[in-house]
Amino acid sequence: MTEAATTADQGALLVVSAHAGDFVWRSGGAIALAASRGQRAKVVCLSYGERGESAKAWLAGKKLEEIKEIRRAEAEAAAAALGAEIEFFDIGDYPLPESHETVDRLVLVYRELQPAVVLTHTLVDPYNGDHPAAARMALQARILAQAIGYEAPGEPLGAPPVFSFEPHQSEQCDFKPNLLLDITAVWEAKQAAMKCLPAQQHMWDYYTDLAKRRGVQLKRNAGPNLGLAVDTRAEAFFRHFPQTTGELS
Amino acid sequence: MTEAATTADQGALLVVSAHAGDFVWRSGGAIALAASRGQRAKVVCLSYGERGESAKAWLAGKKLEEIKEIRRAEAEAAAAALGAEIEFFDIGDYPLPESHETVDRLVLVYRELQPAVVLTHTLVDPYNGDHPAAARMALQARILAQAIGYEAPGEPLGAPPVFSFEPHQSEQCDFKPNLLLDITAVWEAKQAAMKCLPAQQHMWDYYTDLAKRRGVQLKRNAGPNLGLAVDTRAEAFFRHFPQTTGELS
Amino acid sequence: MTEAATTADQGALLVVSAHAGDFVWRSGGAIALAASRGQRAKVVCLSYGERGESAKAWLAGKKLEEIKEIRRAEAEAAAAALGAEIEFFDIGDYPLPESHETVDRLVLVYRELQPAVVLTHTLVDPYNGDHPAAARMALQARILAQAIGYEAPGEPLGAPPVFSFEPHQSEQCDFKPNLLLDITAVWEAKQAAMKCLPAQQHMWDYYTDLAKRRGVQLKRNAGPNLGLAVDTRAEAFFRHFPQTTGELS
Amino acid sequence: MTEAATTADQGALLVVSAHAGDFVWRSGGAIALAASRGQRAKVVCLSYGERGESAKAWLAGKKLEEIKEIRRAEAEAAAAALGAEIEFFDIGDYPLPESHETVDRLVLVYRELQPAVVLTHTLVDPYNGDHPAAARMALQARILAQAIGYEAPGEPLGAPPVFSFEPHQSEQCDFKPNLLLDITAVWEAKQAAMKCLPAQQHMWDYYTDLAKRRGVQLKRNAGPNLGLAVDTRAEAFFRHFPQTTGELS
Amino acid sequence: MTEAATTADQGALLVVSAHAGDFVWRSGGAIALAASRGQRAKVVCLSYGERGESAKAWLAGKKLEEIKEIRRAEAEAAAAALGAEIEFFDIGDYPLPESHETVDRLVLVYRELQPAVVLTHTLVDPYNGDHPAAARMALQARILAQAIGYEAPGEPLGAPPVFSFEPHQSEQCDFKPNLLLDITAVWEAKQAAMKCLPAQQHMWDYYTDLAKRRGVQLKRNAGPNLGLAVDTRAEAFFRHFPQTTGELS
Amino acid sequence: MTEAATTADQGALLVVSAHAGDFVWRSGGAIALAASRGQRAKVVCLSYGERGESAKAWLAGKKLEEIKEIRRAEAEAAAAALGAEIEFFDIGDYPLPESHETVDRLVLVYRELQPAVVLTHTLVDPYNGDHPAAARMALQARILAQAIGYEAPGEPLGAPPVFSFEPHQSEQCDFKPNLLLDITAVWEAKQAAMKCLPAQQHMWDYYTDLAKRRGVQLKRNAGPNLGLAVDTRAEAFFRHFPQTTGELS
Repeated sequence: MTEAATTADQGALLVVSAHAGDFVWRSGGAIALAASRGQRAKVVCLSYGERGESAKAWLAGKKLEEIKEIRRAEAEAAAAALGAEIEFFDIGDYPLPESHETVDRLVLVYRELQPAVVLTHTLVDPYNGDHPAAARMALQARILAQAIGYEAPGEPLGAPPVFSFEPHQSEQCDFKPNLLLDITAVWEAKQAAMKCLPAQQHMWDYYTDLAKRRGVQLKRNAGPNLGLAVDTRAEAFFRHFPQTTGELS
Repeated sequence: MTEAATTADQGALLVVSAHAGDFVWRSGGAIALAASRGQRAKVVCLSYGERGESAKAWLAGKKLEEIKEIRRAEAEAAAAALGAEIEFFDIGDYPLPESHETVDRLVLVYRELQPAVVLTHTLVDPYNGDHPAAARMALQARILAQAIGYEAPGEPLGAPPVFSFEPHQSEQCDFKPNLLLDITAVWEAKQAAMKCLPAQQHMWDYYTDLAKRRGVQLKRNAGPNLGLAVDTRAEAFFRHFPQTTGELS
Repeated sequence: MTEAATTADQGALLVVSAHAGDFVWRSGGAIALAASRGQRAKVVCLSYGERGESAKAWLAGKKLEEIKEIRRAEAEAAAAALGAEIEFFDIGDYPLPESHETVDRLVLVYRELQPAVVLTHTLVDPYNGDHPAAARMALQARILAQAIGYEAPGEPLGAPPVFSFEPHQSEQCDFKPNLLLDITAVWEAKQAAMKCLPAQQHMWDYYTDLAKRRGVQLKRNAGPNLGLAVDTRAEAFFRHFPQTTGELS
Repeated sequence: MTEAATTADQGALLVVSAHAGDFVWRSGGAIALAASRGQRAKVVCLSYGERGESAKAWLAGKKLEEIKEIRRAEAEAAAAALGAEIEFFDIGDYPLPESHETVDRLVLVYRELQPAVVLTHTLVDPYNGDHPAAARMALQARILAQAIGYEAPGEPLGAPPVFSFEPHQSEQCDFKPNLLLDITAVWEAKQAAMKCLPAQQHMWDYYTDLAKRRGVQLKRNAGPNLGLAVDTRAEAFFRHFPQTTGELS
Repeated sequence: MTEAATTADQGALLVVSAHAGDFVWRSGGAIALAASRGQRAKVVCLSYGERGESAKAWLAGKKLEEIKEIRRAEAEAAAAALGAEIEFFDIGDYPLPESHETVDRLVLVYRELQPAVVLTHTLVDPYNGDHPAAARMALQARILAQAIGYEAPGEPLGAPPVFSFEPHQSEQCDFKPNLLLDITAVWEAKQAAMKCLPAQQHMWDYYTDLAKRRGVQLKRNAGPNLGLAVDTRAEAFFRHFPQTTGELS
Repeated sequence: MTEAATTADQGALLVVSAHAGDFVWRSGGAIALAASRGQRAKVVCLSYGERGESAKAWLAGKKLEEIKEIRRAEAEAAAAALGAEIEFFDIGDYPLPESHETVDRLVLVYRELQPAVVLTHTLVDPYNGDHPAAARMALQARILAQAIGYEAPGEPLGAPPVFSFEPHQSEQCDFKPNLLLDITAVWEAKQAAMKCLPAQQHMWDYYTDLAKRRGVQLKRNAGPNLGLAVDTRAEAFFRHFPQTTGELS
């Protein structure tokens, strides 16, 4: 079992993102890593973040449809830079509406993609209700996709692990990372993807600093003996279900 | 980094056990797995469990020294059946005394063994104060062993992951497993080790049932597509520090 | 007050179950105990579990209506074996839809039955969203039924205690039992009820093992002096509201 | 089992109190109830509260030994008013020293008294370190007293339930009551006991108000149908171990 | 920054209350304090509490519309006594329906009022589902009002702190106060407001006792050196977001 | 009360630090702010961090006494740069020994200084046992210093608020900040103090990044309307006891 359980090389990566930019800042490294290894990687953006995460465009007097177009183009470019496919559900944001229809669309994605790993938001975020809403739908769809009795094309889903990526104010979101991912090897790809989002330029530095900080922590938790790079970059995640493995490490 | 981080083949396994039997019931599978893979495995029994876990012998009218001899012999046999070394600190139990001296002895073990993985008790156990006491000392010694400034022979320790093994009443001990280990391949070795502890024969069934139950859960969490054995056996663990890895899975 | 508060002999037991089988595995003993004591016991199955808990039937190529019929017949037989009435709301599962209409139907049940004790699912279950949905509706309906201003036939409800029964993976559902119920006296009735559910035969052993394990824990928590049976069987519950009593015990 | 498990009539009540007054304010009703029912009730005061809870006497210029005498006399009078025996360990307070010697003295009490119910402080109290220290020793001694291998006169202890009584600022001490005890029938005895502690006269009103407030909550949780007295008085407790019972109520 | 951050003198106070009486019992002091200082204070009552909190009127045989009128008049009188404006959304209670429409109405209030401080219910209340529903809507509306892209008249909202006021059974609602507000100076105004609610006369004493109890705790937490009044009255609150300040105190 | 409660201008700041460097990285801004306002500020270093936090010196082959001298000089320089007094208890580190003697020395400091605010470590830190040990002693000493019956020179202490400063890996230490302090005005002083610790030069950048990140969060939590500086710098704290105040803000 060891091999099957400890590698996801053959499987795909699915990212369920509330808004168009979230997947870049919070899991760009994980996506690029998967892609670099030959895994299929797919991002589902439930909305473009047109209302809640596009302050600069609104301040510049742009209109709703225009803003959605801009955000879409940026997100497509960023996904391409990371090596991922991207699909937009365009269900609107602020608030992101929770509905069975959207959950059902996600079931179709799960059934078609058969992801080996799933990434999404945290279930708590007092600063942004769209994030937990996206996470709840991603988790609910995963459960439904597993049931042979749920009517949808394709084979029932297995039990891919689900990880929450890091929210903006981690502690206020009860985000206690239990996995630190070394993204040093793909750091340039993540940087390139971030630069596809010029409206949030202040975030480039913010997430560069964060990657350094999580890198320092990764080295602290991995120990000094592994010969990790001085400039290790990392992303933090929370694994929702118990890890299954054939080897303790 | 992937390889270094996801395998512990070259490193040793250290188990810090409050009493002579704990390591068998709760982590016999993990120990046998490590040994079967060629890893060095070492058990430190802080006490023989002579007062708190030897009711049958006391009822039979045996004396303290005699009971300690019996427990020692049993634990040695069980360790041998699992492929592990064993060392007894003999500091007494009920209560297990916490002292810097004992912590310091554990530092020596860490420095000499340089374990890649550490197993011990949970930090909460309202039914048995010795278990958290052992865990506190195991964790404290690991920290001290990491410091170059701590005076003890050998090289400073790296940052081996620490896992709590399963307590008797998991929920009352706030034990929420975040790792399920497939021990099917070494199940016979664990059974053999359990049979080295004849005084606690009722535990044989209890821990066989538990291994089945955790096996069912492992399959549920791994998903049906991995082709796991019908009679999968598992042990549950709680990882204390964030997992560090080069790949999400 | 002591007597009134510590016995529920005169009152009824209400079980709110998401799917057709849940009440058997998780609270069959509690139901049989109540019935054996002459209490009225009633199970409300919100759905038949036709999509989410009938994998075997779907694999065998059965159709939706056929599956519902099978599950209904099984659940009726199991309820009869336990001595309980059963009512099916048939609102569909996977997902179990939350609606005020269903809550209102539950209010009617509360008002008519005037239960002395209520059993339902846990409020957390990352493996099955239907379970928390059922629990939320059961708890909400209890609150509404208490209000004289809520328009529904019958007298306002008192304040019956509510217990969550045990979920499949207790720790992952934050299920920390605070009550262990001795079901030894009705163990045969629970076994008979389980055998009414032939499609889930692997569960018979699973829940037999669990009853033994909870029985061992009950004896551990009750102490050796009560003369409990060697083969004590138990079910675990979580009490939601403070126990009210005239005597500490 | 029902009877044995739901009544403690034959057994004794043990209260482990850090200071001389704690048992009165926080569990005077529970003690009086037990005594009124013919149960033996015993209070162990680990200290007189001579330093930490005798501000008025210090302000009045009294000396240490004098203060201890006063507190002792008051506590003896209060215990008598409640119908309880009292023993003073006189180990000093502020801080209350934790030692194996004191734990061992408590083991002797457990072995001799064979209590059916144990009351003590909460394990958390950021305002008073003596309270958690007393609770830790009371819980540890209970574990040791259960072990036949622990050297002390008398029979091994069973598994009496342990309850924390209410701390001064409940929420700050993470005190979430799971049992409300109706003390209406013995309210006069508790009042009489409180009046034995004249130095803390402001507490009389405070704990009268609290008894009313907990009484209102008891009625709310018991429901309107039980015919409880308008002026119900109650004390709140936290049960540490799962309740074991033969009947849900 | 100190001044701007530590005073809210120029800003308004917004209270989002599920039912017509909640704001009086739980935050009457905070409202009167703000008004006495010249701040604008506004209460939004989502419902009149006509079904869930008007038992006396139903028992007296009154009709729905009549009850709503009574509750409205009482709440208006109480608001006037405190110096606050009041607006009724009249969305019905038991259950309080959660909808985007209601959230949107709250956004308008936020945008118009630009509150410096927001008060609402706790997010947990197992006794009353309307309270968390009100809190969720108040928090969600605050987030939406902050977004320039959210279509509503007025300027985007800043980031006013949000406080939960005290629920009826604090511990059961996981209410751990992190702020105690001295309301001694406006105690008479709160008393006058309470007396505007004659149907709940038993609550007058209850909340007077509570104000005393929280006052004692305020003095304990503030320390004896501040010269606080002997009869200090206080209300307890839970601050949801980190306090921002230019000075530790 | 408002004024007394919301300003600490007249009172002193006490910082209890496990090792010689902790107070600089984690609370240098808070100290400099207090000093800049004319408050007396005093740091107590329980140890020099000679074993656990001086890896570079040990690697360079320095001896224990020499290392202590270096660390002492550095800490004195840093304290001076911040405007604080400093006292060294020199009780040794790794492990930091907990004793009543050290607690008693801290009581003397409390009684003499009469601090208005206290800063120390978190109560949880799985990476460094010295930090919680220091926090436990600081909190215990504060309690003892409050008791008139505790024998020590000086007046009994009031109830100064206690804050934990930020640990290295916040989430792993269950550090959920509830206060963000604007240190922009004294940022240069903190930088100067950090440069007094040349052996940990990598920390300069690390804590500069952190101050920026907490600054961004402070602005997010304070709202855009306060006119805070673009380059706001902040430190994060956890307040242990309820804030007492005469005004909500």
